[in-house]
Amino acid sequence: MRARSKNSQRESQQGTQDVATREQLLIAAGELMAERGVSDVSLSDIAIKSGLNSALVKYYFGNKAGLMIALLRKVLGPAMLQLHHLSGMKLPPEEKLRIHISGMVMIYFQYPYINRLMHQLLSDEPDTFGSLIAQEFSAPVAAVQKHILDEGFAAGTFRKIDPLLFYFHIVGACDQLFFGRYQLEHVFGIKAINNQLKSQFIDHLYSVVLDGISATSKEP
Amino acid sequence: MRARSKNSQRESQQGTQDVATREQLLIAAGELMAERGVSDVSLSDIAIKSGLNSALVKYYFGNKAGLMIALLRKVLGPAMLQLHHLSGMKLPPEEKLRIHISGMVMIYFQYPYINRLMHQLLSDEPDTFGSLIAQEFSAPVAAVQKHILDEGFAAGTFRKIDPLLFYFHIVGACDQLFFGRYQLEHVFGIKAINNQLKSQFIDHLYSVVLDGISATSKEP
Repeated sequence: MRARSKNSQRESQQGTQDVATREQLLIAAGELMAERGVSDVSLSDIAIKSGLNSALVKYYFGNKAGLMIALLRKVLGPAMLQLHHLSGMKLPPEEKLRIHISGMVMIYFQYPYINRLMHQLLSDEPDTFGSLIAQEFSAPVAAVQKHILDEGFAAGTFRKIDPLLFYFHIVGACDQLFFGRYQLEHVFGIKAINNQLKSQFIDHLYSVVLDGISATSKEP
Repeated sequence: MRARSKNSQRESQQGTQDVATREQLLIAAGELMAERGVSDVSLSDIAIKSGLNSALVKYYFGNKAGLMIALLRKVLGPAMLQLHHLSGMKLPPEEKLRIHISGMVMIYFQYPYINRLMHQLLSDEPDTFGSLIAQEFSAPVAAVQKHILDEGFAAGTFRKIDPLLFYFHIVGACDQLFFGRYQLEHVFGIKAINNQLKSQFIDHLYSVVLDGISATSKEP
């Protein structure tokens, strides 16, 4: 590192500083969205929460939509990587299905604002974000599911299942416990989703779906 | 009717006129929401579309939220009544399950804006609408599902299933094909949901869920 010029040292320090500032803004945005919902968070709220100037949000992300996309990438990035690895793992297809369903529910549990964030972006600017979100986040999920279904069918474990119908079934089901939190409170009297409920939901979805697509189940 | 006073005749005519005007406004609101999404529809849009004065929206519904609740009641009313009858019908539990899943998907197919409408209301005024929507629309669904699950368990057809987990599984799955229409377009290249896709989705959900909760399926 001693061979580095002072300029490149300064650039590198600046780069590290940039990453830290971006991170600080994203953490503040995520915390605010978890507290009060996606649509109630303004750029100046994020500035106040992070202790940084709101001009920095514009400098690093352009606008609120830019920050929201960066937040999605930050929180979903590790899960997308795990999902990518899941396809190639040497595991029986039913075990991959369990890991997949469990991973989806865990992400919604950890970041309950994700779905609202996506739908806010899609509703604000469908032309810009529709294809971006689908390609970056939805298409990889659909591809891995299709891979698992194909493997299960080839192994004689699963019956033939349409990947499109399966995709909407699984994504909708995994998400609804978190998205429909008003129903949870007002129909079932449960204010917050704890670890036990989350685990029960994973077990329920996995067992119903696995038995439902099993090759030994009755054909429709 | 001849015995009626002129006053009560006038009141009755006024009542009929009120119903017709309300209906005209609700139809215009529903058509606009189906065309361009819930959040992009203003009171003056509704006035223009219906050919009526926007002051009438305020007169009949108070505000946009009032009109949205009235629209929900109008489009979901008949389905809630059918759902209520379903519990008491002399049919095997698996047939009731098929009618229920099919009915839910048909409603989302016919009124794809319903879910966004509910979530807009919940997000705008959670304290006012959270309990109203849950009690009027979600609780009856949960109650009928519990009834069907209980009947199926008593008959030895279904295994023991937690009604709360089942509720979120079914509602989320039925809704996602319609709510996630950007994924449908950008991941699967399908611009609109036709009758065939709707029927395939119903068949898929019903067969997977029925086999998944069947008493003969493997326990988790």
